[in-house]
Amino acid sequence: MSERLAIEPLTREAFAPFGDVIECRADSIRMINGGTTERHHALARPEVVGEGASVILNIFRGQPRRFPYSLDMMERHPLGSQSFSPLSGRPYLVVVSPDEDGRPGRPRVFLAGAHQGVNYHRNVWHHPLMALGTVCDFLIADREGPGNNLEEFFFDNPYEIEEPTP
Amino acid sequence: MSERLAIEPLTREAFAPFGDVIECRADSIRMINGGTTERHHALARPEVVGEGASVILNIFRGQPRRFPYSLDMMERHPLGSQSFSPLSGRPYLVVVSPDEDGRPGRPRVFLAGAHQGVNYHRNVWHHPLMALGTVCDFLIADREGPGNNLEEFFFDNPYEIEEPTP
Repeated sequence: MSERLAIEPLTREAFAPFGDVIECRADSIRMINGGTTERHHALARPEVVGEGASVILNIFRGQPRRFPYSLDMMERHPLGSQSFSPLSGRPYLVVVSPDEDGRPGRPRVFLAGAHQGVNYHRNVWHHPLMALGTVCDFLIADREGPGNNLEEFFFDNPYEIEEPTP
Repeated sequence: MSERLAIEPLTREAFAPFGDVIECRADSIRMINGGTTERHHALARPEVVGEGASVILNIFRGQPRRFPYSLDMMERHPLGSQSFSPLSGRPYLVVVSPDEDGRPGRPRVFLAGAHQGVNYHRNVWHHPLMALGTVCDFLIADREGPGNNLEEFFFDNPYEIEEPTP
């Protein structure tokens, strides 16, 4: 029997050990452009390490996942952070694990709202993109450069995620 | 009488002198995540210069502009690029000018689609965010760091932009 993972709402506080939530907050406002625009400043800071590395912007177009989902692997990027901002106006799932002696611990599953991006900090275990319901686009800020920036881990016993209720 | 500016469709080719168009293209695809995700790779490369500078991610929440719009100024950022990706699924206007001896030349107005972001290259004259119709959010990748990264220019004779037809 697979162990079933509960789905939590995505909040800045709950997600803090893993990264940033990229969303408008009352305390992040600076008014600019003659008062026509709220700038929500520095909600995340992409981090890349290594000589010759740079931040790049990409779009990921993700197929929707099917449920119940069998979560059998996690990955992490030792050389850079990776952010996801939803462009299609739909919620999605965010799955992260604390590191336990170089391998992912028990995963936590967050339901991210349509207006919430996330930035995984460097070396944080996470599951690849999990779009919901239909094909969805995301803007990604991550790293390009030399070196191996991908580490994967496969669980002996997969976890199970039920279809989230809207 | 103000000179009226025509509105052009936003294409990668037309915008090339000013920056990047951040959108999915057939030739930008790399399949990842076990075939579930198209990665449209490196659609833009944020550029920041100066010691202690870094790329940051922000959300800009822009009020809609009113038309006819009197375009009386342009700005540029000498120390970094600035990208805008629409999060609200709505078109917007992009206004840029070639540089002419340190001041903006005749502006060009592009109608960006709901799925098109732009990345203004460093030092490219552009008008501040022009949302259309309703309050819209954009994800911005730009620069934080020491130094003056804003130059503004005010036209003696403003230009006029008519309301774009959808």
